[in-house]
Parts: sequence; C-alpha cells; structure tokens
Amino acid sequence: MKNQTKRMEDLRKQLEFFRTVDRMKTIFRQAWITDKSRTENDAEHSWHVALLAMLFADRIAEKNLNLERILRMLLIHDIVEVEAGDTYAFDVNACKDKKERECKAADHLFGLLPEEQGAEFKALWLEFDEEKTPEARFAVVMDHVHPFLLNYYADGKSWVLNKLDTVRLKKRLETLETEFPELNTIVEEMLQDARQRGLVE
Amino acid sequence: MKNQTKRMEDLRKQLEFFRTVDRMKTIFRQAWITDKSRTENDAEHSWHVALLAMLFADRIAEKNLNLERILRMLLIHDIVEVEAGDTYAFDVNACKDKKERECKAADHLFGLLPEEQGAEFKALWLEFDEEKTPEARFAVVMDHVHPFLLNYYADGKSWVLNKLDTVRLKKRLETLETEFPELNTIVEEMLQDARQRGLVE
Repeated sequence: MKNQTKRMEDLRKQLEFFRTVDRMKTIFRQAWITDKSRTENDAEHSWHVALLAMLFADRIAEKNLNLERILRMLLIHDIVEVEAGDTYAFDVNACKDKKERECKAADHLFGLLPEEQGAEFKALWLEFDEEKTPEARFAVVMDHVHPFLLNYYADGKSWVLNKLDTVRLKKRLETLETEFPELNTIVEEMLQDARQRGLVE
Repeated sequence: MKNQTKRMEDLRKQLEFFRTVDRMKTIFRQAWITDKSRTENDAEHSWHVALLAMLFADRIAEKNLNLERILRMLLIHDIVEVEAGDTYAFDVNACKDKKERECKAADHLFGLLPEEQGAEFKALWLEFDEEKTPEARFAVVMDHVHPFLLNYYADGKSWVLNKLDTVRLKKRLETLETEFPELNTIVEEMLQDARQRGLVE
C-alpha cells in the first residue's frame, strides 16, 4: 500500500502523461476513414484496432492468449508517435531510423509516469514492437490488418495514392496465415477484388 | 470448437460491425482536444478514456476490479452513438429520450454481430449504461472525468461556450469521491482554479 503523498505524486504524473498523449489526436496516418473524407489519426486507429482484437476474443481464448495484455499493448503501441511522428510502413527511408527515434520518444514519454509504471509501459511497448510474445505477435497482426481493412473499405484510396502493389501488401501481412488463417482467407479475397478493380497493381 | 462454415460466417459479421462503427470517427462531442483546434470525436474519446483507466490499473487491482472488463466496456460504451448521435450530458431535453434512442441503436448495431457475441456486447453496454457492477461504476466515473480533464486542459473552452457552472460539473462527478478520492481531490483543485480564472460560473 503506497502512502498518501506518493499516491498524489503518482496521480499528478499520470495526468501529465494523459494530457501529453492527447496529441495522438493530431497525428495523421496514411489510411482513410471509410467515408473517404480524411485520413485517420493515431487515437482513432488505437481505438479501432483494440476493438478489432476484442471482437476476436474467442479466437484469442482458443489460442490461450491474454486479451487484457493484447488490449493494453494496442492502447499504447503508437504513443511514441506523439514525439517520433507516424512512419508510413511502406516508406523505406523513413523506416531506417524509426527504431532510434521511437526509443528516444518512449524514454521521454513513459518517463513522465511514476517510475515503476513507466518501466512497465516501456516494456509493454517493446514487447509489441519486437514481437517478443504470442500476445505481441497477435497484436502486431491486428495492427497490420487494421489499415488493410480500412483501405479496402475506402475503395483503396490510400493504395491508389501511394501506388501500392499486391506483393508489398501481402508481405506486410505475411504472419496472418499462421496467426489467423480464416481472416487471411478473407483478406486474400479482398486483395483479389482490389486487383480486379485496379485499386492495387 | 465451431465448424469452419460458422467460423467464416461469424468473421464476416464481425468485419461488417467493425466497418460500421468506423463512423465513431465522425461523431463529434462537446469537449475540445487540448490544442483547442477542434472538438474530439467518439473514437478518440474511447481510446483516451480506456487509456485513462489503464493508467489506474493499480487502483483497479486494489479495488479487486477486473481491468479487462473495464477496458472492454470503455471500448464499446459509445458505439450506440453511431446511430443515436452524441447526447451532450448537460442538454436536459436531449437526455430525455436518450435511453430509447440508444437501446434501438444497440439492438441494431450489436445485431450485426454473431448472435452470442451480439448478446454479450449488448449486455456489456447495458452493464455500463445502468452502472450495474463495480466495474461499470468505475468505468462510468472514468467516462465522466475524461471530458472534465480535457476541458480543464483546454482552458475550459467548452465550459465557457456552454456557460457551465460549478454545481452542474460537480453533480456530474458526484461518485468520484467514493470511487477515487485522490483523483477527486485533484479535480476539486482544478475546479477551484477554473472558477478563479472565470472559466466556470
């Protein structure tokens, strides 16, 4: 049981973190929302991808994975972008120094939290980022399939703008077949449909 | 173990639900994001409030509450607004028929899901909405304190525009003292500061 002074100090640090990461709402990604009016931001993506994982709770239980851990990872997986910015998955040059930029941001942002909690959040982010556990691998697949689905529902707007091809899209989703074969079947159908409609090369 | 045909059918229903609730990103609330550039939408709010609860995991554990259940409730608590619209908490007239509008929306939206999952999501939403369990009561407090914090950090922009007063704000947060006394202390400080600065009456 923590003493009252430490409790209040911790709470103020947690609120400062909470306030800082509000900037997630101003960091825009490449995927368009389904009404095609604009691209989505990191806060929206984080909610939508956590919900996607939650929809698959049965599957997660069958695989003996911990849903709470997956949800917690997905809620914080993009927070480093508040300082490191969004790196488009298909931008080869920007991806080169991504890890370094993001680690620096993680140290600073999670450092706003009470010490033990900051270390825990950083470990959770690294677990996701380095796909260290079965939970992390499932969460990462969700994170990759989320923009794919969104882009498909937005008639491939981002794919057309970025001139994406089937090979690169499939490469991004290469672990889906092992992690979730039925979802992979649907993704393959969508990809075939997108190619027929000229949305991807 | 479900058979393969049922699995694929369920998956297609889950994806239709996932696609439909993307509209959360277009439903705007009264609270402004902290940079004061615009109000926030339901998707952003859902992420930010789930994160807020996650920050208080220690407190939740001390109270013997289930964090996963709280996170799941917060991720879906506003989904009915995709069809029922956002009802401003301080709009007395709009609140009168809120329950009816939202129940109808819940039946339709959760009805897109596989039957058992739809029933489970509806029950989870009702648990939250009617504050049936200790988890629901904690989640509801988070949902009420979230816009308070955001509005405070945005220099009371929404309070000034809506001419809010201390009495109504305190009424909205009346369970906070019991649920989370230390956070209530900070909220009281913020409220006093806001009054001194003329942000609330």
